[in-house]
Amino acid sequence: MEEQANFKSERSTVRRVPKRAHYDAATVFSVLDANFVGQVAFQLEGQPFQIPMLYGREGNVLYLHGSKKSRIYQTLARGIPCSLGVTLVDGIVVARSAFHHSVNYRSVVVFGRCAPVGDPEEKLAVFERFTDAIIPGRWAECRPINAKEAKVTGILALTIEDASAKIRTGGPVDETADYDLPIWAGVVPLETTYGVPVEDQNSKITCEVPGSVRELVNDK
Amino acid sequence: MEEQANFKSERSTVRRVPKRAHYDAATVFSVLDANFVGQVAFQLEGQPFQIPMLYGREGNVLYLHGSKKSRIYQTLARGIPCSLGVTLVDGIVVARSAFHHSVNYRSVVVFGRCAPVGDPEEKLAVFERFTDAIIPGRWAECRPINAKEAKVTGILALTIEDASAKIRTGGPVDETADYDLPIWAGVVPLETTYGVPVEDQNSKITCEVPGSVRELVNDK
Repeated sequence: MEEQANFKSERSTVRRVPKRAHYDAATVFSVLDANFVGQVAFQLEGQPFQIPMLYGREGNVLYLHGSKKSRIYQTLARGIPCSLGVTLVDGIVVARSAFHHSVNYRSVVVFGRCAPVGDPEEKLAVFERFTDAIIPGRWAECRPINAKEAKVTGILALTIEDASAKIRTGGPVDETADYDLPIWAGVVPLETTYGVPVEDQNSKITCEVPGSVRELVNDK
Repeated sequence: MEEQANFKSERSTVRRVPKRAHYDAATVFSVLDANFVGQVAFQLEGQPFQIPMLYGREGNVLYLHGSKKSRIYQTLARGIPCSLGVTLVDGIVVARSAFHHSVNYRSVVVFGRCAPVGDPEEKLAVFERFTDAIIPGRWAECRPINAKEAKVTGILALTIEDASAKIRTGGPVDETADYDLPIWAGVVPLETTYGVPVEDQNSKITCEVPGSVRELVNDK
C-alpha cells in the first residue's frame, strides 16, 4: 500500500534534467534501502549544517539514532525542518567530448521533520530493525541491548513528507559530430562490495563467522 | 604550505566523540580527495536543501560545476552560507552487543561560501582539473570543450573557511564482560572498486581502451 504514495511537491520538484526525476515511493524507497548512511542537513543560527547519520526505513519513516546528549539529536528533536540526502555513484560516464563526461548515480533527497521516539517498547523494536537493516539477522545473534544502553540512545523518527529520487543510467550522450571521432567512450562501473570479515583479536574466545555475516558477504 | 592550515572553528568543532575529529588540512584534504561527489547543503526560504554535486579540489578551494541556469548554481552564486559533506563508509563494525555495533568511516564537513568563476581562462583551467580529478589524464584524450559549452557551464569556487574530518577505524569496543561471550565480533570491510570498462555501442568506430581509463581500473 505504501508503494502507491507519491512524494512530489513544490520543494521536492527536480528542476535540472527532470526526465531523470522520480517521485513514486517504490523508487525513492529502493534508493534509500540500498544504503544506510545519509547526510542530514539542517539550519542552526543562520548556518547550514550537515551530519552523516545511520538510518533504517520502515514505511514512510526513516529512523535515525544518536546519543541523546548530542547536539544533532537535541536540535532535530525540536522538530525543525531538515532534509536527508543519499547518493550512490554507479559508474563514470566517459564521453568523446570533455563537456559530456558524467556519472551514473542514484540519489534521493527527503524533506521532513524529526520526532523523538519515547516509548521504550517502540524504541526496542526500532533498535532491532536498525541492526537488521545493516546486517540482516544480526539482532538474534548478539547480546541484547540493556535498559541503560537503551536509555542513553535517542531514536528520531523522520517522517518523509515529500521527496525526490534522481537517477542516471546508461552510456555517454555526445554531440552528433563527435561520434565520428576516434575517441573511446563508455562507462566505467563503480562497485561497492563486502570484503573478507576480519575477527576481532581482543578476546580469548575464537568463534565461527556467524550466519548473518556469512550471508552479508556471500560466504567470502 | 597549504598542508599547515587548520580548519578548526566554533562551528566546525565536533561535539560527539571528539577524539575522532581532525582539523588539519592534510587529513581534511585526504578525505575530500578520496571522493568526487559531495552533498551541498544550503537554506532557501526557510527550508534546508541539499543537492549532490561533483567537485574538484585545488588548495583551499572546492570547484563545483553545474548549468548556469540551474537553481542551485544561481542560489549558491549569491554567496549564501553553505556546507559540503562527504562520507566514505569503510566497513561495518560487528560487536558482541547490539549496542556497540558501528561503522568505520571517513567523513568531512566543509563550511564556506561560493563565488562564480567568471574569467574564461580560469574556467578552462578548472574544467581540465575537474575532468582529470575524476579520470587522471582524460582531458588530453578527448575533444576539448568549445566556447559555447564553456559559456553555458557555471563553475563555482567554494573556499573552505573552516571544516572538520571525523574518522573511525578499527574493531568493535565492547563492554568488558562481553568479551567472555561466545559471540563473533570483528569488521566487515566495504570496498569500492572500478569494474571492467564497457564501450559505448553508439558509434561505428571501435577504439582501444585509452590510457586514462586503463590506469583508473588497473588494467582490468
